[in-house]
Parts: sequence; structure tokens; C-alpha cells
Amino acid sequence: MSFQPPDPQYENRVRTSFARQLFMDFLGAQLIVVRPGYCEIHLPYREELSQQHGFFHGGTIGTIADNAAGYAAYSLMEADATILTVEFKLNLLAPGNGTLLIARGHVIKPGRTLTVCQSDVFVMKNGEEKQCAVALVTLIQLVGRPDSTPSP
Amino acid sequence: MSFQPPDPQYENRVRTSFARQLFMDFLGAQLIVVRPGYCEIHLPYREELSQQHGFFHGGTIGTIADNAAGYAAYSLMEADATILTVEFKLNLLAPGNGTLLIARGHVIKPGRTLTVCQSDVFVMKNGEEKQCAVALVTLIQLVGRPDSTPSP
Amino acid sequence: MSFQPPDPQYENRVRTSFARQLFMDFLGAQLIVVRPGYCEIHLPYREELSQQHGFFHGGTIGTIADNAAGYAAYSLMEADATILTVEFKLNLLAPGNGTLLIARGHVIKPGRTLTVCQSDVFVMKNGEEKQCAVALVTLIQLVGRPDSTPSP
Amino acid sequence: MSFQPPDPQYENRVRTSFARQLFMDFLGAQLIVVRPGYCEIHLPYREELSQQHGFFHGGTIGTIADNAAGYAAYSLMEADATILTVEFKLNLLAPGNGTLLIARGHVIKPGRTLTVCQSDVFVMKNGEEKQCAVALVTLIQLVGRPDSTPSP
Repeated sequence: MSFQPPDPQYENRVRTSFARQLFMDFLGAQLIVVRPGYCEIHLPYREELSQQHGFFHGGTIGTIADNAAGYAAYSLMEADATILTVEFKLNLLAPGNGTLLIARGHVIKPGRTLTVCQSDVFVMKNGEEKQCAVALVTLIQLVGRPDSTPSP
Repeated sequence: MSFQPPDPQYENRVRTSFARQLFMDFLGAQLIVVRPGYCEIHLPYREELSQQHGFFHGGTIGTIADNAAGYAAYSLMEADATILTVEFKLNLLAPGNGTLLIARGHVIKPGRTLTVCQSDVFVMKNGEEKQCAVALVTLIQLVGRPDSTPSP
Repeated sequence: MSFQPPDPQYENRVRTSFARQLFMDFLGAQLIVVRPGYCEIHLPYREELSQQHGFFHGGTIGTIADNAAGYAAYSLMEADATILTVEFKLNLLAPGNGTLLIARGHVIKPGRTLTVCQSDVFVMKNGEEKQCAVALVTLIQLVGRPDSTPSP
Repeated sequence: MSFQPPDPQYENRVRTSFARQLFMDFLGAQLIVVRPGYCEIHLPYREELSQQHGFFHGGTIGTIADNAAGYAAYSLMEADATILTVEFKLNLLAPGNGTLLIARGHVIKPGRTLTVCQSDVFVMKNGEEKQCAVALVTLIQLVGRPDSTPSP
């Protein structure tokens, strides 16, 4: 699907918001691609991100799935809006066994209030991508509430 | 509900598995309570855990919601089993605005293969707890596959 | 939790909306209890409601889980509002093997725009209730759009 | 994705199971297409299937979303297996306003025990399809338990 973002500065706005999420820097997550209604986030493996079997922790998979969906949606929002995740549902399809996580989020249904996105998460091992998770995410746009100041 | 864990060493087994999850230590999460079918995890606030408004990132809320559910389920599993999250669904009810996250997971329906749990997540601010998330989590028991070695 | 419905005529409004849902009558579902933030729906067994094993079809379980949540939320809404389900997630915990389905929905978090509810569904067999499903449901209030006319 | 069903009689097995679901006949739902890992179900509009605005009730949308996913998964299962829905999550994207519902389910990740599917539901109006829902569904295969006899 092809989307027309109402804010021509959408990419800058998404990248600025991502940079304000200190948790992304703490994990080592990188915002790789932003397009209208689409976002791709990478997370290189580090031992600190692992669960009991040494693989990417499910929490890291859920985090970048949620974020890729959120910024896919945010790319289509108004210049003066902020965004919050309402809910998300994640199916883990395979262990996060590899050197890099890749989350690709895209908008399924944009809306003035609610936007629904899907995220597909892949793990890279020996140069091959394998899907390890899929998520459906519902997001809400709060207009007139800048992204940089705390909501009440 | 009251549960009889088949493994009398369940608490030790849960605590050992939690300690092997390096991501928990990286976040600063602590396993506070383990009882049959119940688990409570705390996560003190640090700026590194924040989203764009300075609150706990949704990914940290999802992570400890998933983990509290997982260890609630794992407390009821066989001594020689490991556990994996099949899927989870999280509703964010309020911003994670506070100094401490508390996730309380409990088993709704135990099973030989699948166990369903609920997690309630609260954020502590000025000495008061406020619920910020609720999750339903489905987990699978893999018998005869020790928790400490990688699954294939 | 105790809720104060803004519309004192909430019960009448809920019962009128339920009566307009022809699908409820077609299934044979009955609205048994409406209280602020709470709703209970019963569905007696008929062969026409069954899946391949002769039990209540999962679709009937999901339908009354969704509806009990929706009317629990609707009981707390404005007199001139209508309500739509945004999304729901249902875990099936046991086969719907019995003579009566009972769905109990309650509001977890009310809101001006979004309300989050939980539904617990039980199946009655030989005079005993057994939980067969649990659901989390997100609903949206559309103010100034009467419940009786089609949304565009 | 292309799948090799282990049971060459998969289509007959799926159609026989569908025919045993009396709820499908009661609704008027039709099994239109069965292919390995794919299933399409149609449901023509009748007033009896409506919610308070006269549109397809969310319960009917959830029912055929679940069923299309289930039979997509069942097409890939063993000849002597039955299948149960573990859980599903449905996002309603637009009102079910039209003359025909079409649910298309496909397997995202097949598995010996668990299979994960996606269903997309469309509503036909004036000859045009509009997506009205998307679902993620988790199913479990029970081997050695025929589909035609009740599970305990």
C-alpha cells in the first residue's frame, strides 16, 4: 500500500523521537529505514540481551516489534501529534538464535485516532534471515500534544 | 487458586533460570517472589529504560510482564522441562510514570503442554501503585529438554 | 472496583442496544445482568451452535466474550455515545462441553476514548461451572453518534 | 509460501470436518477454497447476523476468521489428527458493512504441535472488497485423536 504522510518532515520527526528513546540506545537498536507507513529497526546481538538459552530474549523481540510498528504509524501522523501504543500481540515463531534481529513494521490500517500495524521480526544467522516473530499492534494518535514533552 | 508443583525444588529452579537470563541483569530486574503458580518481578527506574516522554519504555513493561507469567508457569513444570513463550498480548493502561515497575504473574490454566497466565503490571509513584498494563501469555512446556542448554 | 456511570439510564440503554443486535436473538443469547462496569450474558446449548466435536463452537464463545465486555464498557459511557470493539484476544482454556455458556465481562480500565475489559467465559455441566475462555477486549467510545443509527 | 501436506486427502478431510460444524451451516457459511496452508470461507449477509447498526456482528467476523485459520492449519496436519484453537486475536479495521464476508486464512508457521496462522477478513459492497479485520490465530494439533469423536 502507498501512503501520503500529512507531514513532509515525517522522517526527521520519526528519527528525532527514536533518538529520544534512551532505551533504544541502551539496547543498541538502530533505526535503519523510515518510509511512509513503514519502519525497519535492527538490533545486533550482545550477550546482555539473552534469555536462559543464550538467544535474544523475547522481551527484546517484543520491544523492537512494538517500536517498528509505532514508528511506521508515527510516520503518517500530524506534525504536532504524539503516539502511544494501545496494545500489542506477539507470536514467537522460532528461537531468536542469531547475530542480528530485524523488525519490519508496516501500517495495515491508518486512522485519525487509531492505527493498526503489523510487525515481522527476523533473526539473521549465517547470512540467512529466518522469521522469529509476528505482531499486531494498535496505536493511538494524540493530536496537539508534542512528542517531546511528557503526557500528564 | 492453589497449585501443587510437581517439582519440590521449583523455587530454586525458577531462580536459577532467571539468573541465567542476562537480559534481566542488564535491565536491573529482580525476582522478588516465587510461589506455586505465581511470580513477582520488580524493575527500578533508570533513565536508560525510558521512551520519548521519559517514562518506562513499553518494551520494559512487556518484558517483565512476559517474564513474570513465564516463571509463574515454570514453577508448576517438571524438573527436567524447559519453557518457551508461545505468544503474549499486552494492553497498556497508563503511562509507566514512576520509580518502580512491579509485574505480578499468575497461572490461569496449567496444562501438560500449554499453560495460560495473566500478568498485571503496576508502576509505583509517591508510594502508590497504579496499574499500567495487563497481559495474557501462553507458554509451552518442553519436557526432557533442560533449561540450561540451547534448544535446537 | 466500583464505577459511577455518567448516564443514570445505563441499564435501559444497554438492554435496548442488546435487543437491537439480531445476532444475539439468532444465537439465543440472553442479557442476564447489567451493572456499572459489569455485564453477564448466557447462551444455552443447541446443536446448531456446535463445532466438529459437538461442543460450543469457539465462535460462539468469542461472540459472547466480546459482547459481555462491550456492554460492560457501554454501561459506563455517555448517553449519546455508541461503542465499537477495536480488538479482542481470546484464550480457549477448555472445550465448551456443557449445557450453558456464561460470559462475565468487567471493565479493567475505563477511559474517555478507549476502555479495556476482561471477559471470563464458563461452561456449565452437571451443575458445575468450568472456565473455558478468557479474553482481553479494547473498545472505543464514539460520542455524539447514537447507538441506533449506522455509523458511516 | 508453498506447503506439502502430509495427508494427500487433506481437502476431503477439511471439507468433512467443516460439514460437521453445525454452527457453520446455521450461519450460512461456505467453505469456498482449500489449498495446502490456505482456506477461504464466505458468509452472505442476513439480518440475523447483524449487530446494533445493522452490519455483520463482530462475532461473525471473529468466527470465520478463526475457522479460516483453523482449516488452513488443518490442511497441513496428519490424517489421524484433530485440531483445536489455542487462542486468537482479532483487530476490527472497519465496520462489516456489505453483502458478503470473505475470510482468507493462511499458515504463517506450521509446526508439529503448534501452528500459527493469519486471517484477513473482507466485506464486499457494491462489488468491491474492503478489509474489515485481521487476526493472528494459534492452533494445536492433537495426533491420534480423530476429528469426529469428542475429545475428553
